[in-house]
Amino acid sequence: MQTPGKSQAADTGAFRRLRINGARLRSALDTVNQVGFVPGHGRTRLALSDADRDARNLLVGWLKDLGLEVVVDDVGNIFGKRRGHDDRLPPVLVGSHIDTVKRGGQYDGVLGVMAALEVIRSLEDHGIETDRPIWVVNWCEEEGTRFPPGLVGSAVWSGLRTPDWAYGLTDSAGLRFGDELGRIGYRGETPAAACPVHAYLEVHVDQGVVLEQSGKTIGVPKGIVGLRFATMHVEGRADHAGGMQMDQRHDALCAAAEMILQVNALPNRFGADMVTTVGEMHVRPNSRFTVPASVDFAVDIRCWDDDLALRAWEELNEFCEAAARRRICQVSGETLLFTGRLPFDQSLTSMVEATARELGHTTHPMASGASHDAANLCQIAPTAMILVPLIGGRSHVPEEETSWYDCEAGANVLLQCVLKSGAAVS
Amino acid sequence: MQTPGKSQAADTGAFRRLRINGARLRSALDTVNQVGFVPGHGRTRLALSDADRDARNLLVGWLKDLGLEVVVDDVGNIFGKRRGHDDRLPPVLVGSHIDTVKRGGQYDGVLGVMAALEVIRSLEDHGIETDRPIWVVNWCEEEGTRFPPGLVGSAVWSGLRTPDWAYGLTDSAGLRFGDELGRIGYRGETPAAACPVHAYLEVHVDQGVVLEQSGKTIGVPKGIVGLRFATMHVEGRADHAGGMQMDQRHDALCAAAEMILQVNALPNRFGADMVTTVGEMHVRPNSRFTVPASVDFAVDIRCWDDDLALRAWEELNEFCEAAARRRICQVSGETLLFTGRLPFDQSLTSMVEATARELGHTTHPMASGASHDAANLCQIAPTAMILVPLIGGRSHVPEEETSWYDCEAGANVLLQCVLKSGAAVS
Repeated sequence: MQTPGKSQAADTGAFRRLRINGARLRSALDTVNQVGFVPGHGRTRLALSDADRDARNLLVGWLKDLGLEVVVDDVGNIFGKRRGHDDRLPPVLVGSHIDTVKRGGQYDGVLGVMAALEVIRSLEDHGIETDRPIWVVNWCEEEGTRFPPGLVGSAVWSGLRTPDWAYGLTDSAGLRFGDELGRIGYRGETPAAACPVHAYLEVHVDQGVVLEQSGKTIGVPKGIVGLRFATMHVEGRADHAGGMQMDQRHDALCAAAEMILQVNALPNRFGADMVTTVGEMHVRPNSRFTVPASVDFAVDIRCWDDDLALRAWEELNEFCEAAARRRICQVSGETLLFTGRLPFDQSLTSMVEATARELGHTTHPMASGASHDAANLCQIAPTAMILVPLIGGRSHVPEEETSWYDCEAGANVLLQCVLKSGAAVS
Repeated sequence: MQTPGKSQAADTGAFRRLRINGARLRSALDTVNQVGFVPGHGRTRLALSDADRDARNLLVGWLKDLGLEVVVDDVGNIFGKRRGHDDRLPPVLVGSHIDTVKRGGQYDGVLGVMAALEVIRSLEDHGIETDRPIWVVNWCEEEGTRFPPGLVGSAVWSGLRTPDWAYGLTDSAGLRFGDELGRIGYRGETPAAACPVHAYLEVHVDQGVVLEQSGKTIGVPKGIVGLRFATMHVEGRADHAGGMQMDQRHDALCAAAEMILQVNALPNRFGADMVTTVGEMHVRPNSRFTVPASVDFAVDIRCWDDDLALRAWEELNEFCEAAARRRICQVSGETLLFTGRLPFDQSLTSMVEATARELGHTTHPMASGASHDAANLCQIAPTAMILVPLIGGRSHVPEEETSWYDCEAGANVLLQCVLKSGAAVS
């Protein structure tokens, strides 16, 4: 009987030639993407909806077919656990999420879960065992479309939030996360609590144009940019549109319009890689013949440089105060979520890059402007991501598209990284 | 037996001393204003709602109590007809509307209907007959909050629109005007069609600050300003807020924000009495983490000078085209309603002014920036309005307030004008 170490050394060449089954990955992806699909309107699998449940059921069935131990924790994360040669070792954790935004695409999230599943299927095909356990994970409510701010399951599992925090989140209809989790049958009994993790790896489609424009196949993010999600409340006064003179109005929408343009101008002022967005706004009473009484709008500031991001937020607030005064309105800003940049593990990131190159792929070092469950995991475990290029930068839309070559490339990089991290032994 | 002419001359002095019963007017107003009232949220009597029906039922009961012939036409206008000495003469028509905006005030519209009712009650108190018939009217769906563009009943009655046009209007829930009219039991059998009208008089609270700031009691509008109600559609492209670089976005909200500020700036550029408003906007998908794909916003331009208003609209469109190009978006403007200024009858307006002064009130010549059913009536009959000052310019809000002295003054001017126009005979 060989020692695991010798076996590993002997088989390294064979391991390196291993590839995932691309057709099977495509088929699994297509099957999940039938769930929540409406022709012309993309896929809608909002967290804890019936569609989310149906997609979860597919995944759980496939994990069980592979003989994996399926564990659902008490905030709805699903783990498919493949035993390691030494099952007491910290596992290699691979996955992403299968929930979507409204009218989402066919890659965001689900590609990472299906790639993780395909990695296990490939290990099974070849009867490969690993020293470490390999766990597939589907994180609960990543998108935050239904229960803001998103990244819910991974935040609780990583110990950054409590289950009660998650249970108390409400959707726009007033339904509670905890109730909906029970309703779809995915409120497990196992406490959502991280164990030591050897490595967390997540394949995901890039969500911008950076990687595509680089012309490279595999994006290797150094981490997630700093994020600020805030809401600005502008209070003016309702008046009759035909009767109130212009100079006596307290027009909350005009004040908000000035502020929105200032949000948009911040990256030009502060440079670096900052991106800023106002994606959502609510006007009250929103009546054609009434001067708007109040406006709320969302502010999204993302930047790798935390100092710049802070200065931009502070200057924005000063601008908004001045604009509100000019318009005889009042403004207040509320930060819903603020995180500084989150660097990934350097040696794991280097391994991803080296592995991609071993497979003959070009690589692009970058920062991820989109947040991912990896943003929570990197705070408790060595974490890296494997990004594949998006075509035309169109994410969170039905038209989301990638090259299938790139998807297979990402899944193969994941497979090789799992073989290395998991210490394949036979 | 005296001839009517002699009787009128003999009683002129007595007629001039006649006053409405202020306490009774107040009581009728308060009674109607209980309908649709929610403490802290004003009155909501959207057209053809249950609240509108209940208020109509009160009015119809009171009109019948006075022995008037009540006629409901096929678009829901209610007439209470008091016979004239010569009932073949064109009637004097007095009234307004009892529907409200969402969370409206206690004077807009209903004051004019209750003042008309009180005029009839006062005539009855004193046994006064008139040569001409006097008709009280409640116009259907003036506000247009539920079935835009409003002024529905008076438009059909005046022959400016067809009943089928009215029936086909839909509310935001997709309910049809025709169906809702039947549901509340106010789809009468009499065709809505104007007969010759001797004079149309409407008491209404001013809806701005012009009259209040003049310091005068009775506003005498020379007519209704020209109106343009339009919608701008801005088409951009949805992108991931974190992933898409700033210079490659097609941000429909930023383009719209520039346009909204330009709408607001038009009066400063074009002067005169122009007022412009964006009161309503819709952002799609209106999701915090998605660059807005499209925005619709309402444009409201009002001006007594039709040429200026047209130039302002044309320049706004040029600006919007340029702003859309800069933001890599597309824009199209759709005019929902355009009317040039609508002058009232000069001699009737002069009579209102003279009558107010005879009663010892100060008067202020003005243009009405708000539209009213009088805007339709003035196109088919001699029309004038009697405006009373609004406090602080707050209309279309729960806090809408007037001085009661001014309301009684307006009702007394109406009474005296009816006595003159109707040719009181005994």
